[in-house]
Amino acid sequence: MADSLTQLETYLYEHIPLSVALGVKAVEASCHQVVLTAPMTPNINHKQTAFGGSLHAVATLACWSLMYLNLKEFPHFTDIVISKSEVNYICPVTTDFTVECSIENQSDWLKVESILYKKGIGRLRLNAKIYQDGKLAVDYWGEFVAIRRKK
Amino acid sequence: MADSLTQLETYLYEHIPLSVALGVKAVEASCHQVVLTAPMTPNINHKQTAFGGSLHAVATLACWSLMYLNLKEFPHFTDIVISKSEVNYICPVTTDFTVECSIENQSDWLKVESILYKKGIGRLRLNAKIYQDGKLAVDYWGEFVAIRRKK
Repeated sequence: MADSLTQLETYLYEHIPLSVALGVKAVEASCHQVVLTAPMTPNINHKQTAFGGSLHAVATLACWSLMYLNLKEFPHFTDIVISKSEVNYICPVTTDFTVECSIENQSDWLKVESILYKKGIGRLRLNAKIYQDGKLAVDYWGEFVAIRRKK
Repeated sequence: MADSLTQLETYLYEHIPLSVALGVKAVEASCHQVVLTAPMTPNINHKQTAFGGSLHAVATLACWSLMYLNLKEFPHFTDIVISKSEVNYICPVTTDFTVECSIENQSDWLKVESILYKKGIGRLRLNAKIYQDGKLAVDYWGEFVAIRRKK
């Protein structure tokens, strides 16, 4: 468990340097769920709440990481790109925050994998959530595309 | 002109520290248009293109700045919050990038100002664009809310 967290953090820090500036840490990193945290200090805004761009960026990293972990063992090398995202900022985030992204139904992932295998491209819409005092504060949706690399 | 750019940059760097990590610079800062740039190095991803979270964050800063500049002289002190955003990543950004956010029709802003004056709250949907080699690469929409502070 600790190994998978360190591996994911190391990958993010080395390949996406903004993850270092955001102060991202991994607290869960499985094929079912990725949970990332980030501290308030580097992500604060003029109202002493978390900057909307930071909340979106950590949510994007959580969803991207979940795709990455699921595709890691895929027999064909794949690239992951984000094609669109939407975010609802429901209430302000005023403390260090945690982003949770899960694949609710394993069958959703199996469908993506099957289409990716047949057609070389698969899309998955992923949801990430940030709670503040037990209440949903940020609701993020991102569409991620896995593309098989040409030989 | 140079003064307004430095003032905006100084405000962003002091109040939203992620703007420093993103490497944001202001190249236009008027009530009609805000143009921000960011370098590739701190915003790169594993595919040597710009990280989607960075593109969204700089677009958010450009739109937020345009609201801020328009509200600066407003007779009632106001807060600006972002309520939602959507972004379409149309093609990869592979170089230092520029984000442009404009108020197309001045009448749109006058409506917001009038509602804000009467009801204490005004909403504006702003668009920010990033071009790559003359082609639209990132299309961002954000809904920003100006709220009159209670006395």
